[in-house]
Amino acid sequence: MADKVILLDYWVSPFGMRVRIALAEKGIKYEYREEDLSNKSPLLLQMNPIHKKIPVLIHNGKSICESLMAVQYIDEVWNEKSSLLPSDPYQRSQARFWADYVDKKIFDVGRNLWAKKGEEQEAAKKEFIEVHKLLELELGDKTYFGGDKLGFVDVALIPYYTWFKSYETFGNISLEKECPKFIAWAKKCMQIESVSKSLPDQDKVHDLIVELRKMSY
Amino acid sequence: MADKVILLDYWVSPFGMRVRIALAEKGIKYEYREEDLSNKSPLLLQMNPIHKKIPVLIHNGKSICESLMAVQYIDEVWNEKSSLLPSDPYQRSQARFWADYVDKKIFDVGRNLWAKKGEEQEAAKKEFIEVHKLLELELGDKTYFGGDKLGFVDVALIPYYTWFKSYETFGNISLEKECPKFIAWAKKCMQIESVSKSLPDQDKVHDLIVELRKMSY
Repeated sequence: MADKVILLDYWVSPFGMRVRIALAEKGIKYEYREEDLSNKSPLLLQMNPIHKKIPVLIHNGKSICESLMAVQYIDEVWNEKSSLLPSDPYQRSQARFWADYVDKKIFDVGRNLWAKKGEEQEAAKKEFIEVHKLLELELGDKTYFGGDKLGFVDVALIPYYTWFKSYETFGNISLEKECPKFIAWAKKCMQIESVSKSLPDQDKVHDLIVELRKMSY
Repeated sequence: MADKVILLDYWVSPFGMRVRIALAEKGIKYEYREEDLSNKSPLLLQMNPIHKKIPVLIHNGKSICESLMAVQYIDEVWNEKSSLLPSDPYQRSQARFWADYVDKKIFDVGRNLWAKKGEEQEAAKKEFIEVHKLLELELGDKTYFGGDKLGFVDVALIPYYTWFKSYETFGNISLEKECPKFIAWAKKCMQIESVSKSLPDQDKVHDLIVELRKMSY
């Protein structure tokens, strides 16, 4: 039986983008279904009854929820192509640690850059730079977090780059100035086809954030 | 070379307890080092410079931080004994999903049961019961979340049972009444030696919470 793979997603979601990149990395054909998050489909509610969130990967009728779980699942099921996670248990634990760090830090801090003002925004600005300096340190001299090829941490992190125009514009930050190696890494990732074809343009994301921002005041 | 395993921990931490259970399940000898969280050891700061939190597993000089990462690491390195995570990728994704659910829900909601009053406490009470009803549903007719033996979700979840006297006393809840199958599961887990010998007594935890609570008003 041919694999039937469906992705319930929303185009601007960095979490959904992770799953799109992982599927593209493995060369898996799938049906992309855009969700209207203000009017979620019965399929989304059925497939992710606990969190009711995108992305949901549906593989032959079974759902895998939470983006990092879905990326690990894809890596484990379609394991003929090169792995996103390293084979060494220690290296694997470190990849999981940093992907978890990305999950704990970037989305919320990033949101405070464009949705808040004053002190809260200033605190977010400071933390945003600190977080990226730490990530830059972890990257070190490697081309990617995964070494000489795209890995789990790269897949977890690069989607946020599509939000950078908004982060930088509203947060009044130049990350290129603060963390040049981080930006060089991001640009290198964007040259990989599985990444570039899975991610929306920064301008398109920014246009949406501009509108969202109007509603949040 | 014999493995040198050290655990930096604090006795009342449900996160630390997970690592203790996993080590006990695998029969690994290790050195337990109790941390004073108000005066963290140089080793803790060196081994977990990012989060500066316990538990930290140190294996032959290398640190693995974040409890679920440490449990997965233990399961992958000492893989001769039966696995905590299932071998099937889909089942594995579900185990990770539920362990993550435990991480996202229980600690904070539980804290609001004993540290808050009024509306916040009432909301926590409602959510605490909802969360455990969902977990009970996921358990279904299985003996453990891992099936007929202790698994990853069991290891992630059972430590919170040591806080139940406090949750139930201050939250004025009887989970045995609300979720009898959940409590039956917890009692069955407590009969397993790797669990019982790794966890402190509910009364001892409660005595500490009573003191902490005095400070939080």
